[in-house]
Amino acid sequence: MNSEKQASNSQHSHVYAVILAGGSGTRFWPASRRALPKQLLAIGPDRDESLIAATVRRVEPFCSAERVLIATGAHLLDATRRALPQLPDDAFLGEPVARNTAPCIGWASSVVARRDPEAIVMVLPSDHHIANAAAFRDAVELAIESAAQGVITTIGITPNRPETGYGYIEAGARVKSGVRRVQRFEEKPDLNRAREYVASGKHFWNSGMFFFRASTMLERIDEHMPDLAQGLRRIASASERDADTERDATREVFETTKSVSIDYGIMEKTSPLHVVPADFGWSDLGSWQSAWELSEKDAQSNGGDRAAVLVDATGNLVRDLRTDGKKRVLALVGVNDLCVIETDDALLVIPRDRAQDVRLVVEALQAQKLTDKL
Amino acid sequence: MNSEKQASNSQHSHVYAVILAGGSGTRFWPASRRALPKQLLAIGPDRDESLIAATVRRVEPFCSAERVLIATGAHLLDATRRALPQLPDDAFLGEPVARNTAPCIGWASSVVARRDPEAIVMVLPSDHHIANAAAFRDAVELAIESAAQGVITTIGITPNRPETGYGYIEAGARVKSGVRRVQRFEEKPDLNRAREYVASGKHFWNSGMFFFRASTMLERIDEHMPDLAQGLRRIASASERDADTERDATREVFETTKSVSIDYGIMEKTSPLHVVPADFGWSDLGSWQSAWELSEKDAQSNGGDRAAVLVDATGNLVRDLRTDGKKRVLALVGVNDLCVIETDDALLVIPRDRAQDVRLVVEALQAQKLTDKL
Repeated sequence: MNSEKQASNSQHSHVYAVILAGGSGTRFWPASRRALPKQLLAIGPDRDESLIAATVRRVEPFCSAERVLIATGAHLLDATRRALPQLPDDAFLGEPVARNTAPCIGWASSVVARRDPEAIVMVLPSDHHIANAAAFRDAVELAIESAAQGVITTIGITPNRPETGYGYIEAGARVKSGVRRVQRFEEKPDLNRAREYVASGKHFWNSGMFFFRASTMLERIDEHMPDLAQGLRRIASASERDADTERDATREVFETTKSVSIDYGIMEKTSPLHVVPADFGWSDLGSWQSAWELSEKDAQSNGGDRAAVLVDATGNLVRDLRTDGKKRVLALVGVNDLCVIETDDALLVIPRDRAQDVRLVVEALQAQKLTDKL
Repeated sequence: MNSEKQASNSQHSHVYAVILAGGSGTRFWPASRRALPKQLLAIGPDRDESLIAATVRRVEPFCSAERVLIATGAHLLDATRRALPQLPDDAFLGEPVARNTAPCIGWASSVVARRDPEAIVMVLPSDHHIANAAAFRDAVELAIESAAQGVITTIGITPNRPETGYGYIEAGARVKSGVRRVQRFEEKPDLNRAREYVASGKHFWNSGMFFFRASTMLERIDEHMPDLAQGLRRIASASERDADTERDATREVFETTKSVSIDYGIMEKTSPLHVVPADFGWSDLGSWQSAWELSEKDAQSNGGDRAAVLVDATGNLVRDLRTDGKKRVLALVGVNDLCVIETDDALLVIPRDRAQDVRLVVEALQAQKLTDKL
């Protein structure tokens, strides 16, 4: 036990976090915008902390600030830097164009490998909520240990409902306590199949968290995405010249690289893979409905701002996200299960069970060319 | 016909309008406030014109600006003057304290009688909506003619629904075409009785519009409210000294006068009275529900602001009454029959069929001592 602990701690000095912070910001309109995607917002139950700041805080036990990389869109670099003032300038990788997760994770792995050939990388989404930090740490500990053996490892979330919006991972044989082989990746299922998955005890939600040695990932990319591997090598040689050359090469490589997810490009073609099944109060915060679910609620199940005046109103989410500091009254009378979201330049009223349809507003604004509201 | 027309026109030079503009401003919260009651708002279908400005415009065919008096609360004088910049300074009577309609109408009648002993007064509420201006003018013409004969005359609105929120007037014998005797005033009925009233063809809504010679009203006050009559004489003598003396006397008289409505204090005790039954698209605009009823609507029965983004939304009233001139998006998705009202410092969401319950918000704000929002 003691020697295991020491092994784990000595591994930690090689652990890097790559936090994926792209995102388009449609689902949390009007709070989220093109220039202000969800991870930059404090829409979780911790109403003073953005989701990305909470994500960085969660990896602190594993890696200090100089071993955290934030992969984001070039157009989001400034806003993302402002959200994470504790990180050094070179922590931020700005993708010139969005190409899904495989090119981005490959690029970050290559950057990390140049700094530390022994690096172990954990890739984490920046816009999820995790309620149980201790359980999260335990799962990450196991995943890092597994990754250190040279096996790409993912965390699978124990499903608590037959969710049809997520991909699933089917777990196979036990590797050790808390770690299993990945049998296969499953696409988003229909409801019947999702019910079977929940009942099976061996299906887990694909959390989008991946753990690997940087060298392992680069080998897999060589094997399964040779074009991308070549591009990454081109960026690496350019980086030996100067920053401008590196930036130009990065732009050219991204512009000519295909959009591919890491799941499709690498994971589904790689064996063995390991999965750490875990249950740490995970939510992908997919909509205002999720924000309501996670919020603290009053006796009438209303979540959000405590200052709202609520009369005969139950199950609502009220958020006043205006930034001018003026005191305002938000009053709801006789309405149930609504989301009422106010920002400096917009108001949204939508039933919780239609929260996914926020995109219809975004589409309407696009059609009306009200681009400053997107 | 010609001689009648001439008689009517010569009467017009003695016609004065007394427009009652008190009001507490609860029902249209958050648009209406203590310091900004309903008549000062543009909440009718004419969204650029306050209700009181529309009322003054309606009496123009009968009396020019110097024969219009506005009776309002002293605390509302400035705001009311700003709403009616076309009226001279002495058009505004500020009641030192609210004492219901009898003292106020008595005071105004006395003021008018001193200016013109032949004066015919029409008393009109300032916060109603009238759709058919021509039909209104016809009814007023008949009422002025009747008042000129020395008989207090009211306009009764032909009921189009069994409304239990209004008082009714039962009409009796025909006096002449379009004018009947008042049989009696009826309190607000229950629903069964209201249905009988609508079916009877002889019951009319009490519109609160009264027409009389100033001298007739002062005689009736002498007869039925001798204390008030004495107070009014005291103000009249003070007015012969100077403005300060008059103001002090007015304050003392109002402070020591009982609150009595003109209906209870004079009308119900006076006989004969005449009523002019009329149907000119009258609404007392009693709530946001009435504002929706009167508003122009889109194909999905949504009323209010054309700029709102409405997706699968029907029967809503959306009003953005903020005054900072910034462009904002108000978006409603999948909600029906709601009022969504936004002002600079408040937002209200309430179903149309609960619009009366706006008062519950006002009560809650009072309880929380949020007096700046009242």
